[in-house]
Amino acid sequence: MEKHESIFLKKSFVVITGSSRGLGKSMALQFGGKFPPDSVLVLMARNVEALESVRTDLIELVPESTVLVKQYDQGNTDIAYFDGIFDNLLAENKLSKDDFDQVVVVHNCATTGDNVKTALQLCDANHVRSYYDINLVGMILLNTSFFTTFSDSAKSRVVINITSGASQLPAPSLHLYCAGKAARDMFFRVLATEEPSIRILTYAPGAVDTEMLRDLETNASSAAFRKVLNDLRKDDKLKTSAEAVTDLIYVLEDNTFDNAVFVNNYEQTAKPYIEETLFSNKI
Amino acid sequence: MEKHESIFLKKSFVVITGSSRGLGKSMALQFGGKFPPDSVLVLMARNVEALESVRTDLIELVPESTVLVKQYDQGNTDIAYFDGIFDNLLAENKLSKDDFDQVVVVHNCATTGDNVKTALQLCDANHVRSYYDINLVGMILLNTSFFTTFSDSAKSRVVINITSGASQLPAPSLHLYCAGKAARDMFFRVLATEEPSIRILTYAPGAVDTEMLRDLETNASSAAFRKVLNDLRKDDKLKTSAEAVTDLIYVLEDNTFDNAVFVNNYEQTAKPYIEETLFSNKI
Repeated sequence: MEKHESIFLKKSFVVITGSSRGLGKSMALQFGGKFPPDSVLVLMARNVEALESVRTDLIELVPESTVLVKQYDQGNTDIAYFDGIFDNLLAENKLSKDDFDQVVVVHNCATTGDNVKTALQLCDANHVRSYYDINLVGMILLNTSFFTTFSDSAKSRVVINITSGASQLPAPSLHLYCAGKAARDMFFRVLATEEPSIRILTYAPGAVDTEMLRDLETNASSAAFRKVLNDLRKDDKLKTSAEAVTDLIYVLEDNTFDNAVFVNNYEQTAKPYIEETLFSNKI
Repeated sequence: MEKHESIFLKKSFVVITGSSRGLGKSMALQFGGKFPPDSVLVLMARNVEALESVRTDLIELVPESTVLVKQYDQGNTDIAYFDGIFDNLLAENKLSKDDFDQVVVVHNCATTGDNVKTALQLCDANHVRSYYDINLVGMILLNTSFFTTFSDSAKSRVVINITSGASQLPAPSLHLYCAGKAARDMFFRVLATEEPSIRILTYAPGAVDTEMLRDLETNASSAAFRKVLNDLRKDDKLKTSAEAVTDLIYVLEDNTFDNAVFVNNYEQTAKPYIEETLFSNKI
């Protein structure tokens, strides 16, 4: 494989889904200062007020940033919802796709599903459908929309698929999440065979102290899994979102990963806890 | 792990989805003669006339068989569609769940998605949603419905998850299929951690000469993938559905597989073709 340079060198159009909070918010705040100043960062999430607040924080940190905010619901089931999102965004902001030397889409938006339930309690058809609408279907449709706008394979094009150790290891309580992450990772492995010109990073940030994690620590149906998470916190092994993004930035600067191959930050955090607790006979 | 006896020894209630044709039909025809004669086989698919024809063929082969036919659309999005399917089926046929020493559900129903398209052409929201409704969401909801009826963990309970080598290896054109199969396999790995009393076989039958395969041979967007399939046929390496089910029956008689671990019949058929063609530099 050719040597790739750091992804932060080119004038870029960078989209981050789920950037109103947690890891996505930290990516926005740290990516903003890494790309050349004439790059454009697009923050997407349902909560537009929270996105505006991230935008304000970023502009305070990096005053020369150009940040666009786009209200977006990845679980929207309207037939044409995903069509032309980026064409419209460029037009509304008097930008052209030719303004950029690189385009980057970060598929970060994610939910964990109803973890109070076990796999055999998943009887709410609307909930299960909605889970895969948000975490799988909507992501595929957004990805298509992005690359329909940015179809020039001569330009640098990057996908960052934020995944989880849960795409590789089955965790009790995380039935919908594990399956959804496994599906997304495989989708991008297929895309990598079809479109080798796109750089695809499938990245698991490890155990990060987010609202999602705190919800699981308290509410996950599996006591064994709650114990894993509680022990991680007790032993001070959780990363902050900012630390997790610093790790991710290193991977993107280094830029030597194999396309769409699972890259794991998890050895540093959750792995010993999960293997000792969930995959021994201690459950 | 305790030694398990052949799954064909107990009086069983056996459900096979997608049993109107292909592999599912062959399972119906061969399973019918393997389980004790007071077992009940439930054939489920959309096409009830085709199911009745399978039932007629089976009763001709094994006159003492008890076969129920249930029209079923795994992609149905009505909120209550999956509720009480098996409770109602038992009541309608004056059966009780206590009549059986073992229950078996075969999740065989599957589609391949719009393989004429590449991953970056997947812009039809209804199609992508419908794909995961049929292949992931509906399967989860049916599985819940089955184990809500058959909730007694003291009885022998078996899941057969029909998967594919495509859940492990990304094949161009099979974007929706690879991702869906990877998701299903992982869902059952989580179920295995939550409910170790359920025996779960995740089984890839190899390259089987079905309508699904013939469609891919002609229509798949990737010429490299079509060549893999065409070479398999030319070299007479495809299994018939009947042969593939004979292999599966051996695995179920032997019954030594690890729960929810991918079991592959694929070394015997597609593997050398796929690895030589798709994962070398010959594309």
